[in-house]
Order: sequence, then C-alpha cells, then structure tokens
Amino acid sequence: MRIAVDAMGGDFAPDEIVRGAVLLASEIGFADEIILVGDQPKIEAALQKTAWSGAGISIRHAGEVIAMDEHPAQAIRKKRNSSVVVCGQMVKNREVDATISAGNTGAAMAVATLNIGRIPGIERPAIATILPTQLGNCLLLDAGANVDCSPVNLLQFALMGAVYAKHALGIPDPTIGLLNIGAEESKGNELTKETYALLKKSHLRFYGNVEGKDVYDHVTDVIVCDGFVGNVALKTSEGLAEMMLSIIKENMKQFDDHILAALTPVVKGLSKKIDYAERGGALLLGVDGVSIIAHGRSNSKAIVNAIRQGISSAKSGYVNIIKQELLELSLDFK
Amino acid sequence: MRIAVDAMGGDFAPDEIVRGAVLLASEIGFADEIILVGDQPKIEAALQKTAWSGAGISIRHAGEVIAMDEHPAQAIRKKRNSSVVVCGQMVKNREVDATISAGNTGAAMAVATLNIGRIPGIERPAIATILPTQLGNCLLLDAGANVDCSPVNLLQFALMGAVYAKHALGIPDPTIGLLNIGAEESKGNELTKETYALLKKSHLRFYGNVEGKDVYDHVTDVIVCDGFVGNVALKTSEGLAEMMLSIIKENMKQFDDHILAALTPVVKGLSKKIDYAERGGALLLGVDGVSIIAHGRSNSKAIVNAIRQGISSAKSGYVNIIKQELLELSLDFK
Repeated sequence: MRIAVDAMGGDFAPDEIVRGAVLLASEIGFADEIILVGDQPKIEAALQKTAWSGAGISIRHAGEVIAMDEHPAQAIRKKRNSSVVVCGQMVKNREVDATISAGNTGAAMAVATLNIGRIPGIERPAIATILPTQLGNCLLLDAGANVDCSPVNLLQFALMGAVYAKHALGIPDPTIGLLNIGAEESKGNELTKETYALLKKSHLRFYGNVEGKDVYDHVTDVIVCDGFVGNVALKTSEGLAEMMLSIIKENMKQFDDHILAALTPVVKGLSKKIDYAERGGALLLGVDGVSIIAHGRSNSKAIVNAIRQGISSAKSGYVNIIKQELLELSLDFK
Repeated sequence: MRIAVDAMGGDFAPDEIVRGAVLLASEIGFADEIILVGDQPKIEAALQKTAWSGAGISIRHAGEVIAMDEHPAQAIRKKRNSSVVVCGQMVKNREVDATISAGNTGAAMAVATLNIGRIPGIERPAIATILPTQLGNCLLLDAGANVDCSPVNLLQFALMGAVYAKHALGIPDPTIGLLNIGAEESKGNELTKETYALLKKSHLRFYGNVEGKDVYDHVTDVIVCDGFVGNVALKTSEGLAEMMLSIIKENMKQFDDHILAALTPVVKGLSKKIDYAERGGALLLGVDGVSIIAHGRSNSKAIVNAIRQGISSAKSGYVNIIKQELLELSLDFK
C-alpha cells in the first residue's frame, strides 16, 4: 500500500508527523510506502532529526500550506499546491491508496469531498469515529461533517458504517443502533422517527434505538446520528474523561512511592483506553477513496496509528464494497 | 416550606423515598414539612421501618400509582388520584411550595405542564440538570423535555437558566453558553445560528458558543441546547463515567490492603463528584411552581438531596423572578 501523509498539517507539523512516519516505516518493514507531502526542505530537515534509514519513505514537494484558521473551501481553491490538496489529488489519481492529514479539518474534508469526490449514490460523506467501549471498538457516525441530515443520509451512514465495521474493523455481522433519547420506536424527533422506519425496512442488521448511556456499553457495533448530535456527544465525553483523569492525577500527588508505583499503570491504562491517539483518526466515509483526518494535536504515536488505520482501511477494500452494497440497499426500497 | 414527595414513584419506592424523607426531616429540625403522598398503609409500613420520631412528616393518601411503563398523558388523565397527580395538584393549589417525584418521568412532566401549568409567556418548559465541572456546578437545559426547539424556546431557556443559577444556585452574574459544534458565530445548524442572533441581541450575559469539550471545563455557568442534544450529551457522559469507574474498580482488585486503603477515598470522591444522586434531581423550569424529577433509581440519599433542592429552589423565589425577567426580555426585542 502507498499512503500520502500531509507532513505540514497539525499543531506539531512537520516534526511529529515525520517522526510518526519514520517510526511506522521501520516497523512495517517497507512492505508499504509512506509519501510525505509538503515543503521538501522542511521535511528533509525533520527527517534528519530522526533515525531514518532511508527506506520506506519518499517525499512529494508541495510548496503551500493551509493554516488551521483559513476558510476551508476558499483555501483549497486558492492553494492548489498546498500539501492537503496534493494529498487528495494523489488519491484521486490512484497514485496512493489512502491519505492522512492532521491539519485544518474543514480543508481535509473539503478536499475529500471536492477533489477526491463522493462515491456515486452517496448524498453526504460522514465522519466516522472509533470509540472505546467496555467490549471493544464501536463506530459512531456522523461525528460532525453534516449539521443537518435527512433520514436517507442516516440510512446511508448505517450502510457505510456496517461495511467498514465488518471489513476494516473485523466485526463479523455488525449491529446498527440509531442514537436517540429513548429505546421505544416512537421516541425522538422527526429525523430519528423517519430514519427508524427506513432502517427497519432495510436489509441492514438494525438493532433499534440506542441511548447515550448505551454507547460505552457497546449495545451495538455501529451507531448513527446527525453530525451535530454526534459531535456534541463525542466532545462532551472527551471533556468528561479529561476531567476525571485530572481529578485522579491531582489526588495521586498525596501518595507515597509504593502506592504510586502500583497505581501508575492503572491510570496509564485508563488514559490509553480513552486516548484518541490510540485509535488513529476519523475516517471520511462516503468518499471515493480512503481519507483519514487525524487530530490537530496529533503526536508521532497518533500519526503511527492513523497511518496504520489508513493501510488497513485501504487493504479492506471497503470503498468498493460500499458501492456494491448501495445497489443492494436500493433493492430494499423498490 | 412544605414539600410534597411522591412516595410511590421510583424503583425503590416507597421504602427508599420514605427513608430519605425521614433522614432529612431529622436533619432540618422540622422548620420545613415533608408530605409523603401515596398509599397510606404502605407509607405507614415504610415509616415503621425507620427511626422516625413523628415530627416533620405527614401523609396525604393517594390510592393510585402510575407505573414506570404507562403512557404518561393517558395515565395522568385516567388516574386522577395517583400520587404524582395529587402532588401536582397540591402545588397548583399552593398547599405546598414544591414537589418531588422519582417515578415515571413522562408522567411527572405531564403533571407539571398540564396540572401545575406553564408560566404565562413561556412557550415550553425545559428540564434543567446540574452538572459537576472542574469549577463547581453548571446548569444545562434542555436535558430532554423538547426534542424539537425553536430559537425563541432556547432564548427563554437561557433566561430561565440564568435566573435559576443566580437565585437558587447562588452564582452572582451567570454566563450563558450555546452548545454548538464550534466556537465561531457562523457554526452550527439553523437552530443555533438563529438562537445565537437572539441571545446576542438580548440583555442576557451571553458568552457565545460552547463546544462539548467546554462543558466540564465550566466555560459558562449555564448551557442551553435543544432537548435531544442535551439528553444525548448527558447520557453519553453518564455512560463514559460509568465505564471509567468500572475499569478503575476492576483494576483495584489486584491491589493489597495498604494500597486499597489509600485509593478507596479517591475513587469514592470521584464517584461522588459524578454521581447524580449527589446533586438532587432535574428541575422543570418554566412551570408555574417548583417541580423536581429525581432519578428513577433514587436511593434515600438521592431523595434527601432532591428534597433539599426543592426547599432551596422554593425559597429562592425563582418562579416569580422568571415572570419579571420575561417582561424585561420582551423589551430587548421591541
């Protein structure tokens, strides 16, 4: 597999991005190739700071950078030689199998939708995020790409989520839940009620409504919702987890070395469990290629996991499977 | 103050409800009076299991009970002598200053809206919930009463939240945040964009948009959102907190007594911080009286806190202040 990595995107670019690429390149034994896209001199300087052996990584020069605060759609139109736009173009031209960016999220999304393009028949791509639960990973979408959604959008999210969960995450026969404020079919707003009816009629393995508290209990493998609700749910969880960890860490200051030694691995395990960096990036499902959006604050570890996710996603061939399954879904409503 | 408590509502009724009332009655020294509403023989039997001295508590017989799974609106119309309906009637008739129920949430809400009635001018009452944050309590509304809201609904939620935060929670000059998926004014869906404009034009102390991750950082004292989003955010947080605590507790099994002794108060403190039972119940703001909905799983401790919240809420006189402030708000848009 060949993966284009936006070397200029993210709070710690290019150093942490390049370091992540080098870490992974040495690990995967050069069966795959990482192409660092961005300002060549800067990438070379960053590479020199690492223990890079010279193999598994190449550079594609792209002279422009889209800053975190630029207007996404305008910036990608104006800066055609920016690292994120070049990455998208490489996916579009099938030069690479996937792309990863930790830069301006809106720009990466705009590139995916406008440059790479949507899968024919998919009305709206969605951001899919992997959540840690009591029983392994759960895929939530949309995590913020679309603030207003139609029932058909959510139906398509369900199909795409099920395909990705099965083929890329290895969940045999994924169940789908509709995020709602109650379990009964009659609960929710117009969007969830109409979506419920569509999902029930489809051939997908629809479990029914799931409530917020069910998310981390892993009641279903895939959870669909509109991007506003998904984003708020995710970010609120993130904030609460940070608060709880900071309370624990504050309390640990009082302990002696013996207790600290015992406790540290527990806290580290908990941090790791809820750390976004451990689960790679968010995936743009519905785009005609693999596009992964890593967290803006990504360190080298997060980049390693995001690239790894890009490789396994591309290998699964989920994009083509979505195309086939879309045809099947249309039969449900004939 | 006189508080009507639905003795028949909740998973552990009547025993835990009655026990909570007795605990509080002995603590507050009978300056206030608790009226236990429900099946008299059952309440008397429950009272006999406690160390009740006979003071501070009276009983109002109500022969019917609305079960957790009954249809709220139908049940309150049919069972006019049910404990929750009688509680509402007592508020309506000004026999009591507040009511508390841990029973069927929909029924308690329907009683509040239909029997007690809305504050004139308030289009929709909202469920307000107190959240623990890094810096004290934060009031979030709507936590689930209205799945579809208009910008005017949210503007009124902001006003009611600010009044309650100031007068009942003692926050001097509460700031208001609009829950959204980004900080900028242009972010969000139609509802948040229009609400932003209204809040900006009002005399309320509007901070701007707050994101999910800001909630537990206490960026603002009051947070407004529609009931669908609020419910999902709250329940998702609840689920994540439970998962983190269960991971910690699971890990603690490996520790020796010395470490456990040191660690137990930390975990207890953390549990307490995020425990709904510590913060009383949810408040129905916009109703012409004080109506508190306690958690269905309320134990005696939760009931103590809910009654305490009922007393302090009633003492604050927030209902009348909302009426005055509504007039002032209308001047902002003249």
